[in-house]
Amino acid sequence: MTGIKTTGEKKLMLFSGRAHPELAREVASELGVGIVPTTARDFANGEIYVRFEESVRGADCFLIQSHTAPINKWIMEQLIMIDALKRASARSISVIIPFYGYARQDKKHRGREPISARLMADMLKTAGADRIITMDLHADQVQGYFDGPVDHLFALPVLSNYIATRTDREQLTVVSPDAGRVRVADRWADRLGAPLAIVHKRRDPDVANQVTVHEVVGDVNERVCVLVDDMIDTGGTICAAADALFANGARDVVVAATHGVLSGPAADRLKNSRVSEFIFTNSLPTPTEVSLDKITVLSMAPTIARAVREVFEDGSVTSLFEGNA
Amino acid sequence: MTGIKTTGEKKLMLFSGRAHPELAREVASELGVGIVPTTARDFANGEIYVRFEESVRGADCFLIQSHTAPINKWIMEQLIMIDALKRASARSISVIIPFYGYARQDKKHRGREPISARLMADMLKTAGADRIITMDLHADQVQGYFDGPVDHLFALPVLSNYIATRTDREQLTVVSPDAGRVRVADRWADRLGAPLAIVHKRRDPDVANQVTVHEVVGDVNERVCVLVDDMIDTGGTICAAADALFANGARDVVVAATHGVLSGPAADRLKNSRVSEFIFTNSLPTPTEVSLDKITVLSMAPTIARAVREVFEDGSVTSLFEGNA
Amino acid sequence: MTGIKTTGEKKLMLFSGRAHPELAREVASELGVGIVPTTARDFANGEIYVRFEESVRGADCFLIQSHTAPINKWIMEQLIMIDALKRASARSISVIIPFYGYARQDKKHRGREPISARLMADMLKTAGADRIITMDLHADQVQGYFDGPVDHLFALPVLSNYIATRTDREQLTVVSPDAGRVRVADRWADRLGAPLAIVHKRRDPDVANQVTVHEVVGDVNERVCVLVDDMIDTGGTICAAADALFANGARDVVVAATHGVLSGPAADRLKNSRVSEFIFTNSLPTPTEVSLDKITVLSMAPTIARAVREVFEDGSVTSLFEGNA
Amino acid sequence: MTGIKTTGEKKLMLFSGRAHPELAREVASELGVGIVPTTARDFANGEIYVRFEESVRGADCFLIQSHTAPINKWIMEQLIMIDALKRASARSISVIIPFYGYARQDKKHRGREPISARLMADMLKTAGADRIITMDLHADQVQGYFDGPVDHLFALPVLSNYIATRTDREQLTVVSPDAGRVRVADRWADRLGAPLAIVHKRRDPDVANQVTVHEVVGDVNERVCVLVDDMIDTGGTICAAADALFANGARDVVVAATHGVLSGPAADRLKNSRVSEFIFTNSLPTPTEVSLDKITVLSMAPTIARAVREVFEDGSVTSLFEGNA
Amino acid sequence: MTGIKTTGEKKLMLFSGRAHPELAREVASELGVGIVPTTARDFANGEIYVRFEESVRGADCFLIQSHTAPINKWIMEQLIMIDALKRASARSISVIIPFYGYARQDKKHRGREPISARLMADMLKTAGADRIITMDLHADQVQGYFDGPVDHLFALPVLSNYIATRTDREQLTVVSPDAGRVRVADRWADRLGAPLAIVHKRRDPDVANQVTVHEVVGDVNERVCVLVDDMIDTGGTICAAADALFANGARDVVVAATHGVLSGPAADRLKNSRVSEFIFTNSLPTPTEVSLDKITVLSMAPTIARAVREVFEDGSVTSLFEGNA
Amino acid sequence: MTGIKTTGEKKLMLFSGRAHPELAREVASELGVGIVPTTARDFANGEIYVRFEESVRGADCFLIQSHTAPINKWIMEQLIMIDALKRASARSISVIIPFYGYARQDKKHRGREPISARLMADMLKTAGADRIITMDLHADQVQGYFDGPVDHLFALPVLSNYIATRTDREQLTVVSPDAGRVRVADRWADRLGAPLAIVHKRRDPDVANQVTVHEVVGDVNERVCVLVDDMIDTGGTICAAADALFANGARDVVVAATHGVLSGPAADRLKNSRVSEFIFTNSLPTPTEVSLDKITVLSMAPTIARAVREVFEDGSVTSLFEGNA
Repeated sequence: MTGIKTTGEKKLMLFSGRAHPELAREVASELGVGIVPTTARDFANGEIYVRFEESVRGADCFLIQSHTAPINKWIMEQLIMIDALKRASARSISVIIPFYGYARQDKKHRGREPISARLMADMLKTAGADRIITMDLHADQVQGYFDGPVDHLFALPVLSNYIATRTDREQLTVVSPDAGRVRVADRWADRLGAPLAIVHKRRDPDVANQVTVHEVVGDVNERVCVLVDDMIDTGGTICAAADALFANGARDVVVAATHGVLSGPAADRLKNSRVSEFIFTNSLPTPTEVSLDKITVLSMAPTIARAVREVFEDGSVTSLFEGNA
Repeated sequence: MTGIKTTGEKKLMLFSGRAHPELAREVASELGVGIVPTTARDFANGEIYVRFEESVRGADCFLIQSHTAPINKWIMEQLIMIDALKRASARSISVIIPFYGYARQDKKHRGREPISARLMADMLKTAGADRIITMDLHADQVQGYFDGPVDHLFALPVLSNYIATRTDREQLTVVSPDAGRVRVADRWADRLGAPLAIVHKRRDPDVANQVTVHEVVGDVNERVCVLVDDMIDTGGTICAAADALFANGARDVVVAATHGVLSGPAADRLKNSRVSEFIFTNSLPTPTEVSLDKITVLSMAPTIARAVREVFEDGSVTSLFEGNA
Repeated sequence: MTGIKTTGEKKLMLFSGRAHPELAREVASELGVGIVPTTARDFANGEIYVRFEESVRGADCFLIQSHTAPINKWIMEQLIMIDALKRASARSISVIIPFYGYARQDKKHRGREPISARLMADMLKTAGADRIITMDLHADQVQGYFDGPVDHLFALPVLSNYIATRTDREQLTVVSPDAGRVRVADRWADRLGAPLAIVHKRRDPDVANQVTVHEVVGDVNERVCVLVDDMIDTGGTICAAADALFANGARDVVVAATHGVLSGPAADRLKNSRVSEFIFTNSLPTPTEVSLDKITVLSMAPTIARAVREVFEDGSVTSLFEGNA
Repeated sequence: MTGIKTTGEKKLMLFSGRAHPELAREVASELGVGIVPTTARDFANGEIYVRFEESVRGADCFLIQSHTAPINKWIMEQLIMIDALKRASARSISVIIPFYGYARQDKKHRGREPISARLMADMLKTAGADRIITMDLHADQVQGYFDGPVDHLFALPVLSNYIATRTDREQLTVVSPDAGRVRVADRWADRLGAPLAIVHKRRDPDVANQVTVHEVVGDVNERVCVLVDDMIDTGGTICAAADALFANGARDVVVAATHGVLSGPAADRLKNSRVSEFIFTNSLPTPTEVSLDKITVLSMAPTIARAVREVFEDGSVTSLFEGNA
Repeated sequence: MTGIKTTGEKKLMLFSGRAHPELAREVASELGVGIVPTTARDFANGEIYVRFEESVRGADCFLIQSHTAPINKWIMEQLIMIDALKRASARSISVIIPFYGYARQDKKHRGREPISARLMADMLKTAGADRIITMDLHADQVQGYFDGPVDHLFALPVLSNYIATRTDREQLTVVSPDAGRVRVADRWADRLGAPLAIVHKRRDPDVANQVTVHEVVGDVNERVCVLVDDMIDTGGTICAAADALFANGARDVVVAATHGVLSGPAADRLKNSRVSEFIFTNSLPTPTEVSLDKITVLSMAPTIARAVREVFEDGSVTSLFEGNA
Repeated sequence: MTGIKTTGEKKLMLFSGRAHPELAREVASELGVGIVPTTARDFANGEIYVRFEESVRGADCFLIQSHTAPINKWIMEQLIMIDALKRASARSISVIIPFYGYARQDKKHRGREPISARLMADMLKTAGADRIITMDLHADQVQGYFDGPVDHLFALPVLSNYIATRTDREQLTVVSPDAGRVRVADRWADRLGAPLAIVHKRRDPDVANQVTVHEVVGDVNERVCVLVDDMIDTGGTICAAADALFANGARDVVVAATHGVLSGPAADRLKNSRVSEFIFTNSLPTPTEVSLDKITVLSMAPTIARAVREVFEDGSVTSLFEGNA
């Protein structure tokens, strides 16, 4: 052969946007690597500037950014960082999105709406992303919006283990806060061997103008209810569901959700609610105005770090979640 | 200007594959057009040959094919017909898929599975489809798998009107046959102003090896239960759910589903079930071995024809479903 | 022919994001159309929701959004609106971007930087844009970043006519505020028949650490200087250049720029500057904190409206600028 | 509807590169249109510059260029013209390529060769071509290299009618000049109702080093042989085949081919050959050095013009060739 | 560098669909690897489900599937398996298609036909295939339908060596069964140093309605004829050609073809034919109803295995066929 | 794992088109590799044929071609070579284009022009290029035309070092030959610590019909002027600028430009000019008719070779130019 031969090498490099640096640092620490030094700042008119301080040529790059507020800014920053990695000859670009923004806009409820969750996937692809690592998508189908591998991590083992070790399983009932989340509750019920109930929003036919009652389907009297959801945003649905449970005789209610978005009126609602404990993961930074004693935050950094390592070493991410029950 | 100017013209042409010609004929009749004469046959080794007998140049083509058995053959025929339309200079290609095959494979339940519903959408696009007109997708998110407009039709108005005019609403309870279909049942409950119940498959903790009980969540005693689903395939889930309802005191059970797939053991199961009536649409041809008196098939041809006309005339498909409650 | 024939029709529909509604209204008024009623709002966590209140099927859609602060939000809103138009079967989507965000990031100055201006073009394309109508791009080459037609409008006729009618051309000297903008100044000099000068930032070799002097190349003594640029952002360069001109004997200095970005310290700098008049267009909303008497804002709405009309009627946008000198 | 409605219009515009202006003029004349005035010239270093002198916005553009020598230059010119049409908002771009360059490189004969015929198709697509109109491709399969409609014209009716009216069919034998062209000869034999013969190049096993003999398979003694091929390039194969036919007793030999490439030694070979007449079409300009009395050139302009008209008016190009035998 | 470095590794993994497991096992055995355990089954309505039982992350995957009956099902299975490999992070996906379905639909014979061979290539690409390894395509040009590397294997060495060692070369004549296959026969003639003849289907001008005679062009009297083709489907052409050879005095006729499709009436035709031996490769499973003594099946597994090894080890597939005569 | 594992390997292979073999040989020599033996020739009608004589499977291929005259031919050759590399399973394809053709057509100066520089980038991508290595693009923005990494090399260090070591910096003035090149001159001025001047083409208002004068902006009296540009094509601008400098009292003028295109009248103009020295790099072969004593050609082969090595070894190309001042 005319040419030069050398042994191939693989390099893992970890990058972080500015959205949730604490989580990136935890993941880096779990992996035993540093985060690649990066200049990222805003120009006066808000345009984002990014530059990596080390050569990334030929590296398998993992770029962590969680889509917290201001969400559009951090999404754009991630896209720009991907572009910079692509043009700097990264060998592969895996984007880690612990909370995937716009995942709830995953279908047209009515005509002339966007499907923004698909748009996000296409923009990540266009910018240059090869793989997405994400966690508890609002709908599993969003995996299919990306034209490439999606490693989908679950917080269920971490969250449910926490609850299982702190409560008497015999007394537990898993509750879905509305009809759209029953599938999630079903997985919890399976895992904890607990019965299932549903809070169902229903129009009261006796009162005009769409007033709804929160009807509890299933028996919750004297039960310890675990209200489960993938995310808590303003807290409206979950707190109303908790009220309905107490009104139906529940002894206690705890809330478990992967993503603590906690925006707008969430701080007040959580504070004023009779729910005894809110359990989230650190997929998003907890807003400082919502730092209540009854909020527990569990770290997903070990799970994310293991996934990164499996991806880099061509191991199996699937195996992370099998044999875990 | 150097050149020739003429007034633009639009042509609607309707095509049908060989999967479900009855429905195509009904749609054509509703539209007041003929189906474009088409040669479609199998070569000895099973390869499909297709040719259109009229020029399609410049036409807005609507190609109807429902993904019934043998499903892979009819999907391939549709792709080949799209290719032929594209290469024959069709102006636009709208594919009408009353039942969208592989829609249930819309996510990876475990590692190393395909997302075949996305693959279908990508293949339709690659072949040359510009738009999909489909009906009651297994998950709404599948709309987002296609990179272009998807007009998503609903059978709910047709199905629920049929039920509403034949039963006493006061006695109705809408039932979801499992945790994954509660959202569909919720829409029915809203529309009929009826209470909701759920049949929940649950592992019995007292018996080993994953034996499940069908637990009814909600009250069905002495109620007329409408078990609703998007599709009935082998009938296993729905018949077991009906049994559970009767066991819990239901007075009567009717089943309503958009898509009567009715494959494998469905014929026997439906026949032997205590369900008093099964109501489907004609999105799929009813297998001849399942021609029972208690099966009612409602036609979606008027709805499809209206959608085609709105698409062709740049009207609004959304308006088809608003103000319809 | 088997099918239906009708005469083709074309529809123009105008849409606006929330970034700069005044300009959209002016353009609509020039065109004699309304802006399509649109719901656009933020969810609690900052995700944007958009829905059009009228059917857009088959329409030639023009969507105006200027990339003002908060810039990443408005870019994302535009992308989401494009996605919604695409999925709602718009016939064509022309995006009007009076000020194109990130246009300055049009090359890698150093390794490992993004080329964000190209990324913007690719994302617009991915979302579904067919054409861009924009104005005075920071570099003309950015036109080539979009894979499709770009109609590039110029503010030079409007700006220079304003100056020509208010000053004695014999006394004018056109000045470029730095070496990178000489080409713009050259066009002005050509149009006004005036001499050219340049303010050149130069490292002083006698002082360490990159201290620069603003050297004036060309003669400005006793001249009325028109400092020209495509945009004024923080005002630093332009105000320093004005100082240098006064220090070199200029009688008066006016500043003319298409885009008044005016972010950060611009308000103070403009106020404190000896420049007698700042002339911008309304490509961006003028920040309220920069409402000075010496700022003049000229409207580009007539030009944009004419471009829209030419695009819709298959006329010539080129002709807008020829024979205009 | 909020907006403006007008009646749609269609415009046909015809463009020509500099490769074969005579043919373009003939086609224009048949269509009754002018060729759009176009500036096309070479910069000093050979880069091509192109600009259209009229607005092409919204027009259905037909761009004729035949790939004659210098072939790479004219291909590039065509690509650049397509790019200019695309960026100037042409509604559709149909490229007319009477002779499609590189069509012979349609497969890898050995490893590490290009498939240049596919590359051409991809480059036309990338530049912006929507449709190809071409003629007698070296292999029909090349149609499939373009991702879009290809209207494939045949010269067989024109060429064979010419021969049929000038010779006694009873005496004709159609001859393929080698094993790879038998399919073409077969079509001729079918159309003229004449027997078939083949000149077969065969290695002589008695002589080393690949010396070949031209063996005539079939009977040509005392026959008038029509040697047919899609193109005559250097004339080597065809003249050797003619010699073999005379050596086997042919009374006369005429040669008919769609494309008279006639490069390199063709001029001498044709002149010195005993072939009585060479019949080509004007798909390519005839090199001046090959202007022999025994060369007949038939015009394809009427066929091309009819195809353009059918494409523009959404008629049928297929019908051009049916009922033509 | 901030990050982790490790030595790169390559993994070869072999997969098989359900179409032709025997061949896959032979290839695996030649390679000395196992076939990756795979779940593949049909749901009741015919939808295919696939899952790989081992992690494929980072592996160079080779997926064998031959397009035998039911052909559309096996093509779809292959596409679905490719999708699953892509989404499971395979490093590269090479699809091995010993017999490439729809290869005969490689051009439009008439207007409004598909080019299904190109459609297949595009669907393989869309699903995620990086490379195709195939064998004796019906037309070499089909290589160009795939946008990526195609390793094209030939059965000629295996087939012709078999014949060369069993017959007296002096007595052999290579015969093409029709005008379209002469090129294949030419390669055989070259390799065996044998003369060439052609069976030519010709309309008899004395009898109306397209009745054809099978005319033998070339001398076959007292010769041992090897009728060669790329595939035998229903056997009609080849058996008619054999009859014509015997009618023209052939002493014996053997048939050699790469692909024994053998569908429909092939079983009867082959049985009743006077052909003494039919020689195929195992590119397709031999239908059980066609198990005749006079059929010989030669294995291509060694050739395929060598190609896989060369691809994996970055060797040369070209070299497999050079110096092989 | 079921399969085979081996250690990965990387191979660098260097290829050259026929445009500028001397430079390729110099680069090969710097790298210590041979150029891969390649057959490249023209068919009689000008179509280019290419084949590589060694297997390229799995190799990182670097393909050097400079776009000199006949420019369209060499561009096409490069595209064809890329196609051949892609289809032969190259692992990556980096194209080295020391002078990038059509870079000056990087925007639409007027309507209906192409943006040929973008078209080139898209064609390189379509053919299969993964990366571009180029040098001193006419506009930096052209980097963004390619959808992938562009390594952009600068000749400034080589050219300016040559000048710095041969002249007294105190006497130097850097001059831009027109308004469009001031940014380049600015970089030179920075690097050499020299003052800046501009030759400005200006319409003389006293004379009709666009007669221009070459006005010198800045002081050049008694200075040694370095006229700098990225390329010298016909030499018209640069020689007129030199005349203007001498007319304004310049003591001496030297010209430095990366690309010596030197086409058309350049030979005469350079010979007759009073410029004392023209300094180019060997990015292009120097036309033999322009071999003057006062032309100096500096080699970029060491820079290109270092860039190739950094790319292959995943080093940093950025570092080539940092710390170089």
